[in-house]
Amino acid sequence: MPSSEFSIIDEFFTLKSSQGVPPELGIGDDCAILDVPNDKQLAVSTDTLIEGVHFLASSAPYLLGRKVLAVNLSDLAAMGATPAWVSMAITLPSIDKAWLGQFSDGFFELAKQYNMHLIGGDTTQGPLSITITIMGLLPKTKRLTRSGANVGDSIYVSGSIGNAGLGLQKAQSDEVSVNDADVSAYLNPQPRVELGQQLLGRATSCIDISDGLSADLHHILNASRVGASVIHDTLPLSDSVREHMTCMGDNLWPYSTGDDYELCFTVPASINDIDTKLLAHGITKIGVIEQQPGLRIQLPNGEKVTLNKGYEHFNE
Amino acid sequence: MPSSEFSIIDEFFTLKSSQGVPPELGIGDDCAILDVPNDKQLAVSTDTLIEGVHFLASSAPYLLGRKVLAVNLSDLAAMGATPAWVSMAITLPSIDKAWLGQFSDGFFELAKQYNMHLIGGDTTQGPLSITITIMGLLPKTKRLTRSGANVGDSIYVSGSIGNAGLGLQKAQSDEVSVNDADVSAYLNPQPRVELGQQLLGRATSCIDISDGLSADLHHILNASRVGASVIHDTLPLSDSVREHMTCMGDNLWPYSTGDDYELCFTVPASINDIDTKLLAHGITKIGVIEQQPGLRIQLPNGEKVTLNKGYEHFNE
Repeated sequence: MPSSEFSIIDEFFTLKSSQGVPPELGIGDDCAILDVPNDKQLAVSTDTLIEGVHFLASSAPYLLGRKVLAVNLSDLAAMGATPAWVSMAITLPSIDKAWLGQFSDGFFELAKQYNMHLIGGDTTQGPLSITITIMGLLPKTKRLTRSGANVGDSIYVSGSIGNAGLGLQKAQSDEVSVNDADVSAYLNPQPRVELGQQLLGRATSCIDISDGLSADLHHILNASRVGASVIHDTLPLSDSVREHMTCMGDNLWPYSTGDDYELCFTVPASINDIDTKLLAHGITKIGVIEQQPGLRIQLPNGEKVTLNKGYEHFNE
Repeated sequence: MPSSEFSIIDEFFTLKSSQGVPPELGIGDDCAILDVPNDKQLAVSTDTLIEGVHFLASSAPYLLGRKVLAVNLSDLAAMGATPAWVSMAITLPSIDKAWLGQFSDGFFELAKQYNMHLIGGDTTQGPLSITITIMGLLPKTKRLTRSGANVGDSIYVSGSIGNAGLGLQKAQSDEVSVNDADVSAYLNPQPRVELGQQLLGRATSCIDISDGLSADLHHILNASRVGASVIHDTLPLSDSVREHMTCMGDNLWPYSTGDDYELCFTVPASINDIDTKLLAHGITKIGVIEQQPGLRIQLPNGEKVTLNKGYEHFNE
């Protein structure tokens, strides 16, 4: 029995209304209309998640609904923007109402937490994938970019690194437990939206760690035309990640694992004391920006390793 | 050999710069930043096109690049908005540089025509699909919506109806000629952006015909809580479409074919003379808005047929 696109949108998306900044005109016309306050600019980002590439075919729909929004919120966090509106293009192999109910519950639970409104989208038939375009608001004079890091700046990361990468490996194995902190870091990432907002006016550069610390810090270094040294011993790593590195015999493993959705940012050396508001977010200084191009890792044995490779999306 | 997502974006999209309204911050950071003029609102629409569903696997990449933008421009046209910015999430099975070169040429040729800037997107690996989020500018006090049609308003359509649907049938056959006007209407639709802008302040409602005249006019009727009568003899139909209707023995065929991307709109009965500027766009009066719900087609033999079914995206 054919089921109308329009009734799907109504049933699972339009009727679960959100709080926050209502659009001037929402779902149900050819376009949504947004009124951007005169003292604000709009920050816009687009991300696609594809089954089997960006999430496992076995993903629980509630957590998947949260995650597709979380990874996009993470892009707003990296600019210091305040979340406002979101559109979702979803491609589904068929209409599974139980799946859609849980997926939309997860999506809107996180949308409400950040006072976001769903303003539109598209529903199509095909292999499962979701493309989100997220929009946030920034003061006209402030923003975090990748290009402002200066020689001598300190490099910080939030949270801990490598847990989501380890969680993915565990989720792909048979012994998966949803209570495992690493699995949870992979399936249910927490975007650092509040931290990003507090970095506005303090940080000289910022990025979210989606492709791995090495690849993402390289984006800052390339955009800012600088290099960096990272003191390996200072990396915030959980016991589970340390154990995994030992088992693998690979000290550099946490630099290449993605999906952490923590922030990596730089602050001027003149800020000697990071204030308590920022420290409350669990941030760690891991290195310093240098003039010499490239990313150098200073290992505990005194050895220096240069990293230059990131995560690649395409395999041909 | 792995090829980096970032170099693809650079090679085919970032470097083919467009004219028009430059973003405050463009491609290359976690978000683009847009400065919406104080007297303007933002109109936003999202559409996904999937290979095998919305376009043929045999589609020429240059025309496909044009079409993915054209169908989104058509949504801006239906609101009367002036095109400004666009983001593109593209999912590709592999990196085919010849294909990407032609696809991006087609996309940017149309983007330049409408002074649009590409502000970002995402490149992922998977079955071919493209999701566009398009943004246009509207004066704060003016817009075209689906919900303003009033009893007594005249119903107009632009161009002619059914050609793209016939073109799709021809394109699926072996005897396809790219010079055929119907095939061209399907592969290379012309969004009615200028007409939409001129309807601002004149039309009481407007929609673009993507799912078929019946389905799309129903959206106006439902949103405006009215009904309509259409005089079948007044429908703007090409000789090729008339021949096809005769062959099929189906007078109602043009009401259900999609992909025309013409505008269907209503104007107050008090506007007796549609001015020459609008007439230059090739518009035709096809009916009238009535109080009685539903869409009635008045056939040449005096018979009245009620249409209530549109195009369905899902087949289960």
